[in-house]
Amino acid sequence: MAQAPLGDSEFDRDTAVTLREPGVYDTRLSPGWTIINALNGGYLQAVVGRALGDALPHPHPLTLTAHFLTPSKPGAAMIRTETVRSGRTLSTGQASLLQYEDDGSQVERIRVLASYGDLDTLSDDVRTTAEPPALPPAERCPSAADHPPPGPGDFSLLDRFDMRIDPATAGWAVGAPSGKGEIRGWFTLADGRAPDPLSLLLTVDALPPTAFELGLQGWTPTIELTTHIRRAPAPGPLRVAISTRNLAGGYLEEDAEVWDSADRLVAQSRQLARVPRG
Amino acid sequence: MAQAPLGDSEFDRDTAVTLREPGVYDTRLSPGWTIINALNGGYLQAVVGRALGDALPHPHPLTLTAHFLTPSKPGAAMIRTETVRSGRTLSTGQASLLQYEDDGSQVERIRVLASYGDLDTLSDDVRTTAEPPALPPAERCPSAADHPPPGPGDFSLLDRFDMRIDPATAGWAVGAPSGKGEIRGWFTLADGRAPDPLSLLLTVDALPPTAFELGLQGWTPTIELTTHIRRAPAPGPLRVAISTRNLAGGYLEEDAEVWDSADRLVAQSRQLARVPRG
Repeated sequence: MAQAPLGDSEFDRDTAVTLREPGVYDTRLSPGWTIINALNGGYLQAVVGRALGDALPHPHPLTLTAHFLTPSKPGAAMIRTETVRSGRTLSTGQASLLQYEDDGSQVERIRVLASYGDLDTLSDDVRTTAEPPALPPAERCPSAADHPPPGPGDFSLLDRFDMRIDPATAGWAVGAPSGKGEIRGWFTLADGRAPDPLSLLLTVDALPPTAFELGLQGWTPTIELTTHIRRAPAPGPLRVAISTRNLAGGYLEEDAEVWDSADRLVAQSRQLARVPRG
Repeated sequence: MAQAPLGDSEFDRDTAVTLREPGVYDTRLSPGWTIINALNGGYLQAVVGRALGDALPHPHPLTLTAHFLTPSKPGAAMIRTETVRSGRTLSTGQASLLQYEDDGSQVERIRVLASYGDLDTLSDDVRTTAEPPALPPAERCPSAADHPPPGPGDFSLLDRFDMRIDPATAGWAVGAPSGKGEIRGWFTLADGRAPDPLSLLLTVDALPPTAFELGLQGWTPTIELTTHIRRAPAPGPLRVAISTRNLAGGYLEEDAEVWDSADRLVAQSRQLARVPRG
């Protein structure tokens, strides 16, 4: 696959931010990251994460929480950042993604709170008991782009990835959901751009919702998404496993694990979402 | 056990906040919630959570994220809240816990971002695949207060709870950690005060750190803690299970699940913490 260099890839172009004044950034949200009727939350999180990485003294998000307030639209947006604390190994920042409504009023789309550090300075100790997800080879996994989610809508997002879903967890795509809240797959950006800490903020929210494998259809709006970036990923395809253990009271959590080609657990995330009405 | 009524319990007295002006609250942090050399993060989270519950139009935290910036001290503190968004079923707010240093300078201790709702209005549907932790009866579990963490320090916190640790996960207390990053136990407030959504913010951070069962000793500073409150807990003892699957690069995640006496998964949390030096 062609390897788009970092900095000149769809992901880098579409998450680019421009400094307007200290702590304030302009960006343009690309319609290419739309799924059904909204921009993907992982994409939006990556845009804000890039601005925070520029505003804070440390480069990499170690833990980033985003609360999704109103639906973002393709087009112009502004990110206001605040440096909450600057420490030696960690800095904490907050950011708001803002857009203008047609009536000229400014509306906040996302509020983010995050702590940044430098993943390149972490020690090499690994005492991880978690195991990478067991996945068939990518060539034996159907492409997510060939199996858009049920129902109408815009599936541009699927063209941004080479995403291969484990057939054992893709029953929803053929009308036979497993009833287990698990989906696993291979993930690479469509233009072959290598993963990095920023793109992991996208990857944790890229798979189809676990609700599909629970037999639920329709939109699963994310209320809050927290991502821990634990290590800079090695080049090569990522393996992503998402799971839901507690669907109750109209809400569900969705956990994601991302493993790199060196078998390292590079990201863990959890989101709280509304159960689809469907 | 005596049942301290809600509102007149250690927990309620020590997390009380007083409105100073719209959105701003005064409180007094109690030394009784100190462990080793710092106030417990769950206690601090509950204090801020109470202020947000008063400031926001919805009463219960559904998802609350706290970033711990500087060590809080017993004594006077102030909470500044901001209402980020008010919706029909959810409202989002932010809060800062502030204290004055001896030199008179004001320092931020904790920054919180949370979305609140009304747990009493949630639907009754439950499709949870998670199972409650298997625990021996409480009377066969040693009291955590009888097994303070290794090393010197102030263990006042342990007197606030009737906490019984599953012997299978208490090896650290007798110098024989299991090597598995799991600790399970029974949890009740010492004065019998019934659990509620606010006290769950404390409970998720009340057990000894999983690092102890991984053979590590010393202080495990929390960087960020996110808690989902999924249901108002039924009266009676809670079962808490905490686990760590990824210890690497000097950091670890610690997940907590809290189950109520009706076998409902009432809270899920995850924190990112530093690996103890010990």
